Amino acid sequence: MNKPIEVMRLLAIQMNPTIADIKGNTLKIINGIQKAKNENCQLVFFPELALTGYPPEDFLLLPEFIKAVDIALQSIIEATEGITAIVGTIRKNEIGKEKPLFNSAAVITNQKLIGYQDKSLLPTYDVFDERRYFEPARETKIWNINQHRVAITICEDLWQQSMALKNEVYATDPLQAFEGKQVDFLLNLSASPFHLGKFYDRLKVCSRAAKTLHCPVILNNQVGGNDSLIFDGQSLYISSQGLLLGIAKRFNEDQLLVDLQQPSSSISYHPDEMADLYHALVLGVRDYFKKSGFTQACLGLSGGIDSAIVACIAAEALGPENVLAVLMPSRFSSKGSIEDASLLAHNLKIKIRYIPIEGPFSAYLELLEPHFKDKPYDTTEENIQARIRGMILMALSNKLYYIVLSTGNKSELAMGYSTLYGDTCGGLGVINDVSKTQIYALAKWINREKEIIPQNTIDKPPSAELRPNQKDSDTLPDYAIIDTVLKEYLENYSSSQEISKKHGYDLELVENLITKIHCNEYKRRQSPPGLRVTEKAFSVGRRFPIVQKWV
Amino acid sequence: MNKPIEVMRLLAIQMNPTIADIKGNTLKIINGIQKAKNENCQLVFFPELALTGYPPEDFLLLPEFIKAVDIALQSIIEATEGITAIVGTIRKNEIGKEKPLFNSAAVITNQKLIGYQDKSLLPTYDVFDERRYFEPARETKIWNINQHRVAITICEDLWQQSMALKNEVYATDPLQAFEGKQVDFLLNLSASPFHLGKFYDRLKVCSRAAKTLHCPVILNNQVGGNDSLIFDGQSLYISSQGLLLGIAKRFNEDQLLVDLQQPSSSISYHPDEMADLYHALVLGVRDYFKKSGFTQACLGLSGGIDSAIVACIAAEALGPENVLAVLMPSRFSSKGSIEDASLLAHNLKIKIRYIPIEGPFSAYLELLEPHFKDKPYDTTEENIQARIRGMILMALSNKLYYIVLSTGNKSELAMGYSTLYGDTCGGLGVINDVSKTQIYALAKWINREKEIIPQNTIDKPPSAELRPNQKDSDTLPDYAIIDTVLKEYLENYSSSQEISKKHGYDLELVENLITKIHCNEYKRRQSPPGLRVTEKAFSVGRRFPIVQKWV
Repeated sequence: MNKPIEVMRLLAIQMNPTIADIKGNTLKIINGIQKAKNENCQLVFFPELALTGYPPEDFLLLPEFIKAVDIALQSIIEATEGITAIVGTIRKNEIGKEKPLFNSAAVITNQKLIGYQDKSLLPTYDVFDERRYFEPARETKIWNINQHRVAITICEDLWQQSMALKNEVYATDPLQAFEGKQVDFLLNLSASPFHLGKFYDRLKVCSRAAKTLHCPVILNNQVGGNDSLIFDGQSLYISSQGLLLGIAKRFNEDQLLVDLQQPSSSISYHPDEMADLYHALVLGVRDYFKKSGFTQACLGLSGGIDSAIVACIAAEALGPENVLAVLMPSRFSSKGSIEDASLLAHNLKIKIRYIPIEGPFSAYLELLEPHFKDKPYDTTEENIQARIRGMILMALSNKLYYIVLSTGNKSELAMGYSTLYGDTCGGLGVINDVSKTQIYALAKWINREKEIIPQNTIDKPPSAELRPNQKDSDTLPDYAIIDTVLKEYLENYSSSQEISKKHGYDLELVENLITKIHCNEYKRRQSPPGLRVTEKAFSVGRRFPIVQKWV
Repeated sequence: MNKPIEVMRLLAIQMNPTIADIKGNTLKIINGIQKAKNENCQLVFFPELALTGYPPEDFLLLPEFIKAVDIALQSIIEATEGITAIVGTIRKNEIGKEKPLFNSAAVITNQKLIGYQDKSLLPTYDVFDERRYFEPARETKIWNINQHRVAITICEDLWQQSMALKNEVYATDPLQAFEGKQVDFLLNLSASPFHLGKFYDRLKVCSRAAKTLHCPVILNNQVGGNDSLIFDGQSLYISSQGLLLGIAKRFNEDQLLVDLQQPSSSISYHPDEMADLYHALVLGVRDYFKKSGFTQACLGLSGGIDSAIVACIAAEALGPENVLAVLMPSRFSSKGSIEDASLLAHNLKIKIRYIPIEGPFSAYLELLEPHFKDKPYDTTEENIQARIRGMILMALSNKLYYIVLSTGNKSELAMGYSTLYGDTCGGLGVINDVSKTQIYALAKWINREKEIIPQNTIDKPPSAELRPNQKDSDTLPDYAIIDTVLKEYLENYSSSQEISKKHGYDLELVENLITKIHCNEYKRRQSPPGLRVTEKAFSVGRRFPIVQKWV
């Protein structure tokens, strides 16, 4: 009984579902089942909530939606002749008390629904809201599949055991139900969103589970971008000794074939952080467009580093022929900036339009002069310029069907160093979760083989060019300081005292920065959704009131 | 033992806390304790989370914040000489597993902290996220206060018993712990947000609890506006027969004095729906400004009914001297609209500025002409006008320190009948959750004694006036249909088939409207926070992905 006698080849379909695209997701699942049959597999499995896409959010509250999932599951069941399929889906809580659903894995063998394994640990923190919809599993059991004893878990279920969660401790550990029970292998259906460094956490969690249960672990992770969340895939095959035997593609659909009888040698894999960051953002942009039926993007190209990075990512994600760079110089724009922007557009082979903003700017100044009277030039006039640019981009978007990409970075977003309805305009904030420090590192990585982003764009001091000789450093401290404080405050919840002490920064400076973070909540609330690539993004997973008196 | 021998006078301090204003809230609590002493009360109590304000959201994740609450509680304890105070606050979960806090009531007698009663039922739906932060109570007990047996509950704890929750059923009912236990009276600390009709639910819930436990119920509800949420107060004193004996002010701070030995006669109270709607919005605006330190508002006054309503509310909330109406006619504005707007401003005694937008509009058309070439006039040019207006309002805001009020209504927000970065500009969406149908009813109510809103504004067909002779009805069905579909789909989660059947609407029409709701999620995501006055608002408590393929 200890060693499986039957062969077991299984296939993890690393799938990119679209939220609420029940029909499309069902098709992908049925295709996946067919692929597994073609590969002579006895078992095929899919990511967490593969049928609905993750996260389905309040679609889970629509009875119509639940019904559509039920019907779709029937068609999947019909496709399982001669194979076992394990499909991430929802299950109704028939008791009629507490939450109406379980986050579940349907176990289907040879056209029969054998049962469900529900998820036990329901993350309700950061970007997760699972207790809003789901009840935890009432039972965790071992499944008999083709003479093998199989443990089925869903995402978070694995994580308590290794204490890998930074701020969360569950009272129970579903893996305990399997300990000493001679499990032949463990499957994990995941929708585990990407952030920098997450791969190592996931590897550690799987490895620990494998060693504890003395069995191989195969984790199937969703891939794709869904609004702010990016899923990296990188599904894992881990030996019972906790070694990495196989890994599926990052940021792409893929399949991971596991033959449990076949000896495999362990592999070593060390993701390149900048490559991951770049490809994550590319996928985020690509799926935002593809899944909403758009093909073309436009953005304001200023000659600065932020818009340069966004242009590179957009060109990669959508194809250069689908990206329009709009140069919108004002009376304060330097000649160098226009040259740098043009050179980048040339390097990327993206389209370019030149629309100087002096006309509308003069018209506004003239119109508002009687109302402003003798008040000095201030951020009002700076904002007007940024808003004219936003308006031009939106007009191109409306008339010619572009989605505008917003180019603000995380450091700016934190400090409110942006113009609401100006440079914040856009459908997607591509680098909203990338700090200025990371922006420079990413530029270096993009230029690693040849100069794509003009060196001058990288070397010159950051400036919004909204008044003569303006520099970011006129009003902001060093970005290195901002970004350190940001990480400590956002990701570690450190106090100003702790940050000041740890990094030797002036306490008042740190307090000012934290105050700025909170006071600019109103701007972020109206900014476009941004792609999440760190442990704590502004766009999603961070919930602070606008009106408050903490700072 | 059955009948209390000691006197019991108690005071419910219906308080308006500010989120995270630990110092200010503490002061209000200590003042409340003093008031109760002055009234010769033996007991004083406060709303749910009175010390932090509700909802504190992710402030609950900051260790510094928890520490500040601890310190504040000490100073409250010191203020309780000779009295019992029950204070809504947070309590640390010392076990170190699951969520780190309880939502709790601190029971303090004569400068000693006697203990805590934690909340059992933690709402995690709609606008509530309590499972993100809190563990449910492990114990519910009866407290001995001045020889009385007192049951202490927190908000939701009361609601399961009467099955008053529309879509939620808890497996447990904390009131069962009190049944047959000779409770002398029950206290409920609430932060129960307002929506139209909520008063009756709250009354029913309290009445049912009183009758079940055969004891009086006193509910203390938070009052005030916190971002999108408005709390109406209206704290209740209910007899053991379930009759209403006392009610505190609506939409104002107040205190409710209860003398349990004093015979009281029951009162009857029927809120006026339109009065409630009006006063709720006034409070929402007032607190948004007051709590964030602003005094002045500006808005675009078009001559239409939406901006007219917002002007009325702003004038009431902030004082007419603090409201600026900006008239921004375009080449398409009718003479009547300008007259109507001027007349309203005159009636309300608010300030007025006249800033026609032709100058910038021409400048944009000229600038964009080479890019648009022969494409026909479409929503692009309409949006340009709306965005110029948004830009002017924002410029006034920046230069002269106004908060811009956005004037879009719920029906428009649902349909995407608005210009992002145009008429959606603003710090607060005053009528974001008020349907067009309700807007008309509200206008009638405002004009109930004399004509404040010009009758012409009410009578003329709605128009955005962004092209010649435009009417809303050119592109939208009747608002009566839109608003019915909206209510059914948002509040009741009805399917298009059900709505079509129930109301006799064409199925395709209903489906189109529902598609529009989902397709405009991207606009709403970047719209200002709106005041919530219905069971289901767009601004808060409704979470749908932008990119999806359900419709």
